[in-house]
Amino acid sequence: MKNYSIAKSRRLRSTPYTSRIEKQGVTAYTVYNHMLLPAAFGSVENACEHLKKKVQVWDVAAERQVEISGKDSAKLVQLMTCRDLSKSKIGRCYYCPIIDDDGNLVNDPVILKLADDKWWISIADSDVIFFAKGLATGNKFNVKISEPNVDIIAVQGPKSFDLMKKIFGQEIIELKFFGFDYFNFKGVKHLIARSGWSKQGGFEIYVQNTQSGQELYDYLFQEGKEFDVKPGCPNLIERIESGLLSYGNDFDNNDNPFECGFEKYVNLDSEIVFLGKEKLKKIKLGGIKRKLMGIKIDLDKISITKSININDDKGNLIGELRSACYSPHFKKVIGIAMINEPYCKASITGKLEIDGNSFTVNVCDLPFI
Amino acid sequence: MKNYSIAKSRRLRSTPYTSRIEKQGVTAYTVYNHMLLPAAFGSVENACEHLKKKVQVWDVAAERQVEISGKDSAKLVQLMTCRDLSKSKIGRCYYCPIIDDDGNLVNDPVILKLADDKWWISIADSDVIFFAKGLATGNKFNVKISEPNVDIIAVQGPKSFDLMKKIFGQEIIELKFFGFDYFNFKGVKHLIARSGWSKQGGFEIYVQNTQSGQELYDYLFQEGKEFDVKPGCPNLIERIESGLLSYGNDFDNNDNPFECGFEKYVNLDSEIVFLGKEKLKKIKLGGIKRKLMGIKIDLDKISITKSININDDKGNLIGELRSACYSPHFKKVIGIAMINEPYCKASITGKLEIDGNSFTVNVCDLPFI
Repeated sequence: MKNYSIAKSRRLRSTPYTSRIEKQGVTAYTVYNHMLLPAAFGSVENACEHLKKKVQVWDVAAERQVEISGKDSAKLVQLMTCRDLSKSKIGRCYYCPIIDDDGNLVNDPVILKLADDKWWISIADSDVIFFAKGLATGNKFNVKISEPNVDIIAVQGPKSFDLMKKIFGQEIIELKFFGFDYFNFKGVKHLIARSGWSKQGGFEIYVQNTQSGQELYDYLFQEGKEFDVKPGCPNLIERIESGLLSYGNDFDNNDNPFECGFEKYVNLDSEIVFLGKEKLKKIKLGGIKRKLMGIKIDLDKISITKSININDDKGNLIGELRSACYSPHFKKVIGIAMINEPYCKASITGKLEIDGNSFTVNVCDLPFI
Repeated sequence: MKNYSIAKSRRLRSTPYTSRIEKQGVTAYTVYNHMLLPAAFGSVENACEHLKKKVQVWDVAAERQVEISGKDSAKLVQLMTCRDLSKSKIGRCYYCPIIDDDGNLVNDPVILKLADDKWWISIADSDVIFFAKGLATGNKFNVKISEPNVDIIAVQGPKSFDLMKKIFGQEIIELKFFGFDYFNFKGVKHLIARSGWSKQGGFEIYVQNTQSGQELYDYLFQEGKEFDVKPGCPNLIERIESGLLSYGNDFDNNDNPFECGFEKYVNLDSEIVFLGKEKLKKIKLGGIKRKLMGIKIDLDKISITKSININDDKGNLIGELRSACYSPHFKKVIGIAMINEPYCKASITGKLEIDGNSFTVNVCDLPFI
């Protein structure tokens, strides 16, 4: 596939780490929340292998925060998600589908409860801030909504525990999965969560003090040498192998949470008030007509830039492939597809066409591993 | 400046014309409303000169539409903009700042009135659909909000009138500026407006029938040969020379309409109800503390990827440069900067630093021409 340049401008915001990753050899960007997100440092395959064995430092400042504070903040946050947050605790992260009044997905952020009246919605790629502002204004909620100056550094991979322990001490590796706390770096406190957009383990550092964050970024590389630390970014292969879904790629505002396998985050039986609740009850009752599934293809490369239709032998539409990559682990192409009923079975096979050639697609369950 | 690739994926949506512009030699993309927007076909300078003399066809499908229909649609559309739409007419386009409850800008779309109860908001780069959905839900408005399948082709440049007349007849060049109507192409009706993101004149074709739109795209090149038609895209040089502002580049959700020179679209004296009205009254009364102005620098090139501070001789902050380019017309760099009071005067000079070198900045009024 031909390469095209990205035309940079202020609108595609740089991060506090952009000049660093450019010195470190970033080769490709994507745009996420109107911000530059590194997409490759050379080979994505090599980076995947390294991520599974060592430790990487990622500039994921593009994971922006929507801060909601004030008297009605809990009410507003709950209104936006189908996940019951009534028993949520300060110091914990919650993966929460954000749902509109039609029962469709707006985003799938991790929500951090900072205080009973202060929350960060750590968003995927859509302007949740305007959804929140619209809802707050319309409902006359007493809240303050802003995008704070937070630029996340992720430290991911099995050796991230050694590296973070070396810098922050034993305490940090005792942090539970999806827990967060404040840790000191040279006199500056940083909010650090045990989280990240890979299944290889790691941490996300929510940098508010930019200068200290830049120093910490450099320090992670200095102290990480013995663990073979490398700059990296969310890895297409690793995330598909791990079944991590991506808003905009695998699902969007045309899909509902049941179609995306988010059942366990849809709490219809509780008393909580959230958007689309009645709609989701109806969908659950009627049953879904399609579902995100895995697919495998005997191919040694693929590049997905848009949905590709999957048909059966008679030409009936089985579904559409939305993300895919060659997986060195499975030694074939794997991908995530929205499959229509009655084809949502792991035994189904179909065909798709790439550049005029037809390939057999095997539908399978998610996650792959 | 080093070039970086754009990592394509379904999330950065392709348009119905993407495969065509890639055959025609697009070299760079930007991302706009989660969609690929061509940013260059080789030299931006040559393209600017061509645009000013001839005709170009642009894939601007990334200018997405938010369709608002239903009983309360006029009320919702008016709530979102400070421009008085009470006397708006069907068949007309209106440039409308979208304002939040804090009096800050959310977007600066062109709004098309399709019917008394049906509107298209033709948006700049932010998710207005979620702002509208939040407001509609919160206010319990009876409206339907969606992103329709509309992919705009722009035909821009002085020869666009000849080309469009050749295809659609005399009637189309009688369309008034910011008027729209439906025109027939081989049996399919297309909504066409006399509008576009250049000051060189032209049209925007709001394609709903994708197949007919693709045929029309090809036909524009076939019939345009005699007018030296070329593929193009919004041109950085032409838009800055013309003083066309860009949401995300020159202003964003941290700025209010008075700071951006949108006074004439802020109708505070009318009876209409819109968000941020009281806030904007206060701002008007108190006076603004900064303002978008032009700047000129005696330089033969520049590349802006983020804001650059402008200081006076004593190191006081005068403002920040947000967009700039080398202008062959002015034979120097021109740009758009947010200038702080008391420096908002065309006589002010300042300094900015690029790669460790200091350059003199002359503040001037907008527009440049």
